[in-house]
Amino acid sequence: MTHPETRYPEIHSLDDVRALLRELPGPNEATRQQALQHDAQLTKPPGALGRLEDIAAFAAAWQGRHPPRADNVQVLVFAANHGVAAQGVSAFPAEVTAQMVANFEAGGAAINQLCATFGLNLRVIVLNDLRPTADISREDAMSEAQMLQAFTTGLRAVDTAADLLCIGEMGIANTTVASALLHALLGGTAADWVGPGTGVDDKGIRHKATVVATAVQRLHGEHDPLHILRRVGGYEFAALAGAIIGARLARLPVLLDGFMTAAAAAVLHAISPDAMAHCIAGHVSAEPGHARALQRLGLQSLLNLNMRLGEATGAALATQVVKAAIATHAGMATFASAGVSGGNA
Amino acid sequence: MTHPETRYPEIHSLDDVRALLRELPGPNEATRQQALQHDAQLTKPPGALGRLEDIAAFAAAWQGRHPPRADNVQVLVFAANHGVAAQGVSAFPAEVTAQMVANFEAGGAAINQLCATFGLNLRVIVLNDLRPTADISREDAMSEAQMLQAFTTGLRAVDTAADLLCIGEMGIANTTVASALLHALLGGTAADWVGPGTGVDDKGIRHKATVVATAVQRLHGEHDPLHILRRVGGYEFAALAGAIIGARLARLPVLLDGFMTAAAAAVLHAISPDAMAHCIAGHVSAEPGHARALQRLGLQSLLNLNMRLGEATGAALATQVVKAAIATHAGMATFASAGVSGGNA
Repeated sequence: MTHPETRYPEIHSLDDVRALLRELPGPNEATRQQALQHDAQLTKPPGALGRLEDIAAFAAAWQGRHPPRADNVQVLVFAANHGVAAQGVSAFPAEVTAQMVANFEAGGAAINQLCATFGLNLRVIVLNDLRPTADISREDAMSEAQMLQAFTTGLRAVDTAADLLCIGEMGIANTTVASALLHALLGGTAADWVGPGTGVDDKGIRHKATVVATAVQRLHGEHDPLHILRRVGGYEFAALAGAIIGARLARLPVLLDGFMTAAAAAVLHAISPDAMAHCIAGHVSAEPGHARALQRLGLQSLLNLNMRLGEATGAALATQVVKAAIATHAGMATFASAGVSGGNA
Repeated sequence: MTHPETRYPEIHSLDDVRALLRELPGPNEATRQQALQHDAQLTKPPGALGRLEDIAAFAAAWQGRHPPRADNVQVLVFAANHGVAAQGVSAFPAEVTAQMVANFEAGGAAINQLCATFGLNLRVIVLNDLRPTADISREDAMSEAQMLQAFTTGLRAVDTAADLLCIGEMGIANTTVASALLHALLGGTAADWVGPGTGVDDKGIRHKATVVATAVQRLHGEHDPLHILRRVGGYEFAALAGAIIGARLARLPVLLDGFMTAAAAAVLHAISPDAMAHCIAGHVSAEPGHARALQRLGLQSLLNLNMRLGEATGAALATQVVKAAIATHAGMATFASAGVSGGNA
């Protein structure tokens, strides 16, 4: 079932993307207030469920209904390859992207186990048939048409009948690309945004920083976030940004996964902070630039478990916090119905 | 089904408790090694699942089997009343304990929603028919016989066929009692361990600190942890300690909930740190003494969501992290089986 208000915009140019971002639907303040008023009657001290209470109100506002729901959760994993892998920036060879896509399809990856355990609907989307982008340390990653195609693929992949969307990715060398995007969008030095990724050593991290610095210097101070995405990004980053916007149009809150999803959100944030206001950071990963990126995006993660796998695994685990928030909000008795005395707090 | 190795000890004296704590079963290092070796073959960079990997090995060691399981989870909530409630230390009247027990039984509390959502087996156990302890600011809370009865009740409440145990509590005024226990066991000042509980204001917190200081001064430097528990504790604290030991005998890892469960664990820790080595801190609550207590107990919480409800809610939510850890560990493909190239990390 498509949400009656979901519109599928036609996107043929960067200006179409910019126009779309200017007219995004906002939160429903009435359903947010309904959630806050209902919460105050539940059999618990005010505030005692902490961030769970915030999430219930957030979901009510963005879904535009009270009570909110978290029964139907979609998990989108975007897979893509990167020309910059040729620079030796990853601990794994580029063919692992395709091998892991096969592993997803066979049900053998971490995200498969989490989706099976938690009843989440996983969809893996391969971008550009896994043909890599151009090497960002030498040339622009994508053409405008390629980027728009990936963005549209992400946008249209969202299940508009879902209650909640988790987004994640798979792509050897994509922590290097995420670092380049964040360095170009948020400043600092290349080293501020570079980390071990799948597991390179200190020497490898220094090499990654050099590659990232080279890529960003090539931009000569480019300020347009969409051009930054096109020039030093990658297909999955465009698709992740598209999925965030697709979720917004369908009124789904989004659980971001790790470092790559933060970089994609940062592209939108640089255009308009409001464009990612319906996103929650599912977790903060062990990749050191992730915490820095979340802080700059104004996001506080739900989980901090030293995970750094990607594949939407952190977001998928965080769905359980959202489910807990909504189950308690929707299911608890009120002081009046349960005959429990109120407090003087 | 009772675990074949589970023994139900006879406990007639504090010495029986001490003897029991001296002969607790330890972790199985062979199954821990099996878990670590299996983890190294899974289709992910080494360490990429962070604390989930630690939990899988921890559960394999304490359950003594590989792979470990988290299918059958018991949640025990112990309810009790406290004479010190008469000192006006809580934002809620003492009758709320009984009202909340009725709410648990009717399925209306937060913990009911979490257990229903996550498929956990909830059991609520009322201690001493909710007759309160003596007011710890004036007299010893319990007789030795009363304390041993509560301890034994907790120990025997553990479902020895479960895979994992969550423990929590309900008892108006019990943050005051937890503060007294932690102050007596771990030192510092009364103010170090006192916080808002269900929601008292700054003046209320100062009053709680005075009550806690008065209770602990009455101990005149008592050092024996079991006498501290008897004199400034309460029934649910004795039962929580008993449940931790009951889980150990049945080889179940334990997810601690909040501030009260940390105080009960601190009693065991003061006798022997090993006695609670099979415990994980499910979350760290907003009650400020909780983080301090966990640090002193050498525990790092899984979740930090500003929750402070008790009822085992934080532990129940943390079960999903354990389930994720075990599902990924047990279900993921290996590099060899999935045909994924290994890394050079």
